[in-house]
Amino acid sequence: MAASNLSAQNEVTAITWEAIVEAHERIQPLIHRTPVLTSTSLNELAGALLFFKCENLQKTGSFKIRGASNAIFSLSEGEAKRGVVTHSSGNHAAAVARAAGWRGVPAWIVMPKNAPAVKCRAVEAYGGKITYCEPKVSARAETAVRIQAETGAVLIHPYDDDRIIAGQATAAKELLEEVTELDAVLAPVSGGGLLSGTCLGAKGMRATVRVLGCEPERADDAYRSLQTGVLQTQETSDTIADGLRASLAPRTFAILRKYVDGILLVSEEEIRTAMRLVWQRMKIVIEPSSAVALAPLLREGGVAALGLPTGAHGRSPRIGVILSGGNVEMG
Amino acid sequence: MAASNLSAQNEVTAITWEAIVEAHERIQPLIHRTPVLTSTSLNELAGALLFFKCENLQKTGSFKIRGASNAIFSLSEGEAKRGVVTHSSGNHAAAVARAAGWRGVPAWIVMPKNAPAVKCRAVEAYGGKITYCEPKVSARAETAVRIQAETGAVLIHPYDDDRIIAGQATAAKELLEEVTELDAVLAPVSGGGLLSGTCLGAKGMRATVRVLGCEPERADDAYRSLQTGVLQTQETSDTIADGLRASLAPRTFAILRKYVDGILLVSEEEIRTAMRLVWQRMKIVIEPSSAVALAPLLREGGVAALGLPTGAHGRSPRIGVILSGGNVEMG
Repeated sequence: MAASNLSAQNEVTAITWEAIVEAHERIQPLIHRTPVLTSTSLNELAGALLFFKCENLQKTGSFKIRGASNAIFSLSEGEAKRGVVTHSSGNHAAAVARAAGWRGVPAWIVMPKNAPAVKCRAVEAYGGKITYCEPKVSARAETAVRIQAETGAVLIHPYDDDRIIAGQATAAKELLEEVTELDAVLAPVSGGGLLSGTCLGAKGMRATVRVLGCEPERADDAYRSLQTGVLQTQETSDTIADGLRASLAPRTFAILRKYVDGILLVSEEEIRTAMRLVWQRMKIVIEPSSAVALAPLLREGGVAALGLPTGAHGRSPRIGVILSGGNVEMG
Repeated sequence: MAASNLSAQNEVTAITWEAIVEAHERIQPLIHRTPVLTSTSLNELAGALLFFKCENLQKTGSFKIRGASNAIFSLSEGEAKRGVVTHSSGNHAAAVARAAGWRGVPAWIVMPKNAPAVKCRAVEAYGGKITYCEPKVSARAETAVRIQAETGAVLIHPYDDDRIIAGQATAAKELLEEVTELDAVLAPVSGGGLLSGTCLGAKGMRATVRVLGCEPERADDAYRSLQTGVLQTQETSDTIADGLRASLAPRTFAILRKYVDGILLVSEEEIRTAMRLVWQRMKIVIEPSSAVALAPLLREGGVAALGLPTGAHGRSPRIGVILSGGNVEMG
């Protein structure tokens, strides 16, 4: 274990390696330690050894339960009993409802009127209380603030929260505990909670590992932010990767500026191809957002573009891929 | 380890516990040790703790690679160099082609003209040489015999073979190595290779575990055979569980008569429901044949019908389910 790899991180984040270890101890009894799967045929396509961390097989169907349960189980008794509130149309909503249920406290979930029915049913099944709002970013935040004021509930932001990021970091920590000598880890980026956590979790385990974010061309705000050095936003996006439409927060932007080794953009066609390949070859259900983290490896010269040191090792590159979730509408 | 649980087995089979351990040592470097997954929501539906042995995530997409690689790597150099031959329209064909490729020997695969294109492509991708025949059981066997005569290749039967059964037994062995105190294990039954192996592998690990076969109502020859005590055949079947249309051989019938604790029949509708639930809740792709082994647990009183001892334990029943494969045609 490499408790000191993150020693310089206090410049940009208060999240220490100890906070990630504590988060892991806190949530381990609640979550699955998800399997790491491999596929000979995908290795051949990528020209590398790929290790897939299967958060699609995680409770609630995505990594979001890691951050949500860390945040909710970090609350004091006094805070927790007033309940929690969040706004999300996706996996974070289900995760907050689930974790609040485990803690035995109410969860108010603000969802846009046009959220997919399957997502609403999941939140309800976990005992979340849904408040519908207009499908605009501003309406979501306003509604959440109103509920906070009325109930005293604690806001559990999907990514602009150190407890959330420390929780998400545990996925990469588990991956590097299980797979040695990884050269790189790829994860999708949206608001940056998973990617920030992956940077801290992976580099905390192994200082030399590269961490790359993967993003749809049609929702490329993280790429633009890191290119320009100025936080960019994504107003709207119609990417098939419905989990990746949010924009970085100043908190996640700061972590990524320091720790991430690059952002790789992928087309809609590449996302679809990667998703189909995983279903067919690996026999697991992933959502489009997960496929975004595999897609760059499947293109001609994909692995070379990661900028890994070559030659010295005399072996195939060893690359971790975080498959973030598996929640898709099915017939 | 319980090497003596199977001491009485010589009455019906020459497969010893030592043969299963040897098979496992032989194939372990070649195959995946597949994960055992759990699902809170499926536990709730079944009223039991379910442990899914995910052979859908196995190399070639099914458990068949266990038996095929054990058989092919058991051959002497002299036998192996002449190659192997089999007839199958499904997962066994792909497994034999794959294992023969690993050993570096030719594999002739007899497939019916109407075999699904996806299955033919898999066999070809693994380097198998396909000979098409008329879609009749007799034509398959005749064609295989002709190829045997011409080439001297060794016939690798899908289930009427002790090396195959010993290989299939390693799935249950791994399951019981990982999950303690299982009360029962459910597996689908077709020709009986997997179910025979599951009996020997599971009961070799834990003498008191019950092993139940699961079979479509529309292909109920194993059920009828065990009810009547006379080997019954299945002439044709249109069950959606396309992997379960074969009939027992005398070899597998003898093992099942002694060791299996019952056969559970399921309807086509139950198969479809179980398959959909696994895709949706567990985020893994299974083929209909796999769903057959879960389906009986989802019906009202399903677990009670297993005839497990109750009361004494004061705990939920612990039930293993072998998910046999994940090869389905995708759009």
